[in-house]
Amino acid sequence: MNKLLSPADIVGGTFWLLTIAMVAASFFFFAERNRVSSKWQTSISLVGVVMVISAVQYYYLKDMWVSTGKAPIILRYLDWALSRPVQVTLFYIVLSTFEKLSPALFWRLLVGSLVTVVAEFLGAAGYISATLGFLIGMVGWLYILGELYLGEASAVNVQSGSEKLQLSFNSLRLIVTIGWAIYPLGYFMDHLGGGVDVNTLNIVYSLADFLNKIIFGFVIYNLAIALSQSQNGEEV
Amino acid sequence: MNKLLSPADIVGGTFWLLTIAMVAASFFFFAERNRVSSKWQTSISLVGVVMVISAVQYYYLKDMWVSTGKAPIILRYLDWALSRPVQVTLFYIVLSTFEKLSPALFWRLLVGSLVTVVAEFLGAAGYISATLGFLIGMVGWLYILGELYLGEASAVNVQSGSEKLQLSFNSLRLIVTIGWAIYPLGYFMDHLGGGVDVNTLNIVYSLADFLNKIIFGFVIYNLAIALSQSQNGEEV
Amino acid sequence: MNKLLSPADIVGGTFWLLTIAMVAASFFFFAERNRVSSKWQTSISLVGVVMVISAVQYYYLKDMWVSTGKAPIILRYLDWALSRPVQVTLFYIVLSTFEKLSPALFWRLLVGSLVTVVAEFLGAAGYISATLGFLIGMVGWLYILGELYLGEASAVNVQSGSEKLQLSFNSLRLIVTIGWAIYPLGYFMDHLGGGVDVNTLNIVYSLADFLNKIIFGFVIYNLAIALSQSQNGEEV
Amino acid sequence: MNKLLSPADIVGGTFWLLTIAMVAASFFFFAERNRVSSKWQTSISLVGVVMVISAVQYYYLKDMWVSTGKAPIILRYLDWALSRPVQVTLFYIVLSTFEKLSPALFWRLLVGSLVTVVAEFLGAAGYISATLGFLIGMVGWLYILGELYLGEASAVNVQSGSEKLQLSFNSLRLIVTIGWAIYPLGYFMDHLGGGVDVNTLNIVYSLADFLNKIIFGFVIYNLAIALSQSQNGEEV
Amino acid sequence: MNKLLSPADIVGGTFWLLTIAMVAASFFFFAERNRVSSKWQTSISLVGVVMVISAVQYYYLKDMWVSTGKAPIILRYLDWALSRPVQVTLFYIVLSTFEKLSPALFWRLLVGSLVTVVAEFLGAAGYISATLGFLIGMVGWLYILGELYLGEASAVNVQSGSEKLQLSFNSLRLIVTIGWAIYPLGYFMDHLGGGVDVNTLNIVYSLADFLNKIIFGFVIYNLAIALSQSQNGEEV
Repeated sequence: MNKLLSPADIVGGTFWLLTIAMVAASFFFFAERNRVSSKWQTSISLVGVVMVISAVQYYYLKDMWVSTGKAPIILRYLDWALSRPVQVTLFYIVLSTFEKLSPALFWRLLVGSLVTVVAEFLGAAGYISATLGFLIGMVGWLYILGELYLGEASAVNVQSGSEKLQLSFNSLRLIVTIGWAIYPLGYFMDHLGGGVDVNTLNIVYSLADFLNKIIFGFVIYNLAIALSQSQNGEEV
Repeated sequence: MNKLLSPADIVGGTFWLLTIAMVAASFFFFAERNRVSSKWQTSISLVGVVMVISAVQYYYLKDMWVSTGKAPIILRYLDWALSRPVQVTLFYIVLSTFEKLSPALFWRLLVGSLVTVVAEFLGAAGYISATLGFLIGMVGWLYILGELYLGEASAVNVQSGSEKLQLSFNSLRLIVTIGWAIYPLGYFMDHLGGGVDVNTLNIVYSLADFLNKIIFGFVIYNLAIALSQSQNGEEV
Repeated sequence: MNKLLSPADIVGGTFWLLTIAMVAASFFFFAERNRVSSKWQTSISLVGVVMVISAVQYYYLKDMWVSTGKAPIILRYLDWALSRPVQVTLFYIVLSTFEKLSPALFWRLLVGSLVTVVAEFLGAAGYISATLGFLIGMVGWLYILGELYLGEASAVNVQSGSEKLQLSFNSLRLIVTIGWAIYPLGYFMDHLGGGVDVNTLNIVYSLADFLNKIIFGFVIYNLAIALSQSQNGEEV
Repeated sequence: MNKLLSPADIVGGTFWLLTIAMVAASFFFFAERNRVSSKWQTSISLVGVVMVISAVQYYYLKDMWVSTGKAPIILRYLDWALSRPVQVTLFYIVLSTFEKLSPALFWRLLVGSLVTVVAEFLGAAGYISATLGFLIGMVGWLYILGELYLGEASAVNVQSGSEKLQLSFNSLRLIVTIGWAIYPLGYFMDHLGGGVDVNTLNIVYSLADFLNKIIFGFVIYNLAIALSQSQNGEEV
Repeated sequence: MNKLLSPADIVGGTFWLLTIAMVAASFFFFAERNRVSSKWQTSISLVGVVMVISAVQYYYLKDMWVSTGKAPIILRYLDWALSRPVQVTLFYIVLSTFEKLSPALFWRLLVGSLVTVVAEFLGAAGYISATLGFLIGMVGWLYILGELYLGEASAVNVQSGSEKLQLSFNSLRLIVTIGWAIYPLGYFMDHLGGGVDVNTLNIVYSLADFLNKIIFGFVIYNLAIALSQSQNGEEV
C-alpha cells in the first residue's frame, strides 16, 4: 500500500515536502556555519539542530503515514518538546552576543517553553483535562511573549542600539506571536472546539512548521551573517 | 518484484542513475566549497542543497518505482517546489557578489518561481483547470526570463564588466530558457495536448534534471572558482 | 503493527524522544567542537561519542519495541558498557587539562566503571547471583564516588584554583551521585526487591539518560567554552 | 533467503567486499583531502566521488543479489556512465595543475569516455547490434588511449619535466590500458564470443574495479601528497 | 524472529556491542584527526578507516544473525582482507614519520598480510586443504612478526631514539603477537583440531577485535597526540 501515489494525498505530500526541506535546511545551516563569526556559531548550530530534529520527525511521520495511513497529532509533541525549548533558547543566545544577560532569563524562557509543551501534551493525551492543559499551555506561551515584548529580553533588544538586531528580533517575535498561535489554535479546535479533521490539522501544522522553523532559522542566519561582516559584534 | 532487472527498464535505470549522480554531486560540491572565497560559499552551499533535495527525491522515486511499478509525475512537484526557488535565488546571490541589489529583486524572483510551480501543481492535480494552471505557470516563467534578459538582473550583469560573470550568466540563462522549457512542454503535452506516456515523460524529465541541476551547478562552481582565484571579487 | 500510534504508548514515545534528542545532541557537540581550544576538543569529542552510542542504542530499542513489543532492560547494558567508562574517563580528561595526573588514576576510574557495569550485567543475566552482582556493582560505583569526593581527582579539583572548574566538577559529581543512583536502584527493585514493571523501568531509565548524558555533556561543554574564552587554560 | 551464508557464494562476497572497500576508501580520500595543496583538492574530491558512486552501486548490487539471486551486468553501465567520465576527466585536471591546457582536450576526453560507455550500453541492451556497440566502444577507448600516449595530454606530461608526474601518469595510463581492457574483453566474450557465465563476469569485474578505481585513486593521491610537500606546484 | 531478546544471546549481543563501539570509534578518530600534526593525520585516517570497515561488517553480521540465526566465520575474512593490510601498513606509515623507509618494506608488509588472509580464507572455504591454508597463513604472520622484531621496521624503531615511539611500537607489536594469535588459533581449532562451536568462536573473535582494532587504534592515537605536542616530529 502506498498512499503517496494519488495527487489527492496532500497529507503524505506535505510530510514528504517537509522531510526534504528539513534535510536540505540541515545541510545548508551546518555548511554555512563557518561563515559567521565564532560567537554566532552556536546560534547557527542550534538552528541546525532544530532542522535535524524536524527532519527525523517528518521522515518518521511520512513512513508511518505510508505504512499505516495514520499520523496522530500526539506524535508531534515529541518534536515540539525538543525544538521549541531550543528555539526559545535562541532568543537568549542571540541577545547575549550583545550584552551579558542574567542566567535567570535563560531558565525562565526554558521553563516557559517546556511548561507550554508538557501541559498541552498532558491535555491532548488525556492525562489532565483538555481545558486545564490548554490554560496552562496558554500561560506558558503568554509568559514567553511577555518576556519578549515587555521583559528583560525586550529591554536588551532596545538597549543594544543595533538596528539589524532590532529588525531581526521583531521578525522572530512576530513569528512566535503569529506563527506559533497555530499550535494553541489547533489544540483548541481539536480538543475543545468540537474536533477537527486530523488530516487538515496535519497539513496546517506542516506548513506552519515551514514558517516557524525554516524561516525562523533564516532570520537568525541573516542577522548572524550581517553582523559578522559589519563587525558590529566584538570579534569576527 | 524487482523491475530493475531488465535492460528494458529505462525508467528505473534513469531514476537510479540520477540518484547516484545527485549523491555524488552533493559530495563534490560540499567538499569543494572550501576552495572558493568566503562570499562565494553561500552560492556553493545552495548548489549543494539542490543536489541533496534531488538525491532524496530520486532515491524515493526509485524505491516507489521498484516496489509499486509507478512513479507519478505529480510527485516531482515536491522537488520542484523546493529546488526551483533555490535555483532562481542563485541568480540573485551570484549577482549580489558584484553589486548591491535591491532586496525587491530577490522577492520578485522567489515569488515568480513559486507561482510557476504552485500554479502548475494545482493544474496538474486538478484543483484548478489545467489550462489556467498552464497559463499562470507560463506567466511566472516568462516573468523570470524577462528579469534575466531585460530587468534589473540583466542590467547588473552588463554593468559588472566581468567577462567571466557574463559568460556564466549567459550559460545559466540559457539553461533556464532552453532546459526549463521541458517542464511547461511536458505539462502541455500531458494535460492539454492529448496526454503523453508517463514513462517517457519520466525519462525525459530525469535527463533534463541532469542538465538543469548538475550542469547548472557546475557553471556556478566554475565561476566561483575562477573569480576566487583571480581576486576579481573583493575578498579571497 | 505499530505500537506508537496510541497516546498511551509512553515507552515507545520515550524511546523515540531519546533517539531524536541524542541525534540532535550528536550534531550539536560535534559541530561546536571547533569553538573550544585545542586541548578541550578531546573532551567534546568524548561527549559527542556518548551521544552517538546512545543514539544508535535508542534507535535500535525503538525499532525492537515497535516490531516486537518488548525492550528488555538487559539490552541497556550494551550501551552502559560503552558509555559509562567514557563518561568516567571524562573526569580524568577534564582534570588533566589543569594538571598532570597520574595515569594510574585513569586506569582506576576505567576499571571501577567497568566493574560496575559487568558485575550488574552478570547478575541481571543470571550468570552470577543477583545479590553478588549488586554488591560488586555497588563497590565499583562507591569507589568512583570515593575518588571524586575524597581521592586524587577531588584533590586536583580543589588545587586547580579555578572557580569555573570547581562549579562544573561539583555539577558532574552531583549527576554521578544522584543521577546514576537510578541504575543500582532500578537493579535492586528489579532483581532483589520483588520485581518492577519493565515498562515503568524503561521510561525512568530513558528520562534518567537525558540528565545523565545530555545534561552531563552540556556541563562539560559550558566549562570548555568558558575556559577557552577566558584563556584560563594554557592555549587557545 | 540469504545467499551469502555459503562459502561458495563468491559473487555475493565480492559485492560485499567491494561495498566495504568503497565506503572505506570514500572516508579515506575525503578525510585526507585537507592534506594536499589547494589546487590538488579538486582531484582528490573527484577521486572520492568515484568511490561514492561505486559504494552506492555495489551496495545496491549486493542487495539485489541477496534478495533476487541476480545481478545483471547491464546494471554496471549506470556506474560506468558516471565513474568513467570522471576518471578520464582526472587526467585533464591533474595535468592542468602543471600547465594551462586547451579546454577542447577536456571535452574530447569527456566525449570519448561517454561514447565508449553509451555505445557499449546500447549494444549490451540490444538497442543497436552488439557488434556495432563493440566497435564504437572500441573507437572511444582507443581514442582516449591515443590522447594519453600520443596526443596533447601525453605532450604536457613530457613537457612538465616533473619526474613524479611522469611516474604517476604512466601508472594511470597503464591502468587505463591494461585494467580497462577487462571491460571490452568481458563485453566481447559476453555478447560476441559465445557468451560467458554472468557470475564469473561479475567476480572479474568486481576485482577489476578494485584496481581500476581504488588503486587508480591512490596513484593520484600519492602524486598530490608528494607534490604538495615538495612545492613543485605553485602554491601550497 | 528476534534473537536478541534473550539475555542468553551473547553472540548477538557481542555483534551489537562491537557495531556500536566501532561506530563510536569512527566518530572519535575522524573528529580528533585535526588535533595531530599534518604528517600524523594519515595514520589517524587509516585508524578511522579500520573502524569504518569493522562497523559496516558488524552491522551486517548482527543483521544476518538476527534474521537468519547464523553468522558463519567465513564472512569475517571480508573484513580481515581489508583491515589487516591497513593495520600492517600502519607500522610502515608510523615509522616513516621518523625516517625515510625503503618502499620495499611497505610492499613486503602488505604482501605478508594479504598472504595470511588469503591462504586462511582458501583453506577455510575448502579451495585448498585446511592444513596447507594454515601453514601458508602462519608463514605470512610469522614473516610480519619477524619484520617487526628483527627486520628493517624493528631497526628503525630502535634508531629513532624516541622513547615514546618505542613504547608505542612495543605495544602495537605485542597486540600483533598476542592479540592476532587468536586468529590462527581459532582457525586451527575450527578446521584442524576437531572443530569448535561457531557461536563461541564468534564471541571470542568479537572481543578480540575490540583489542586488536580499537585498542590498537588508541595506541597510535596517543603516540600521534604526544609527538604532535612535543614537536618531536619535524612539523606541527
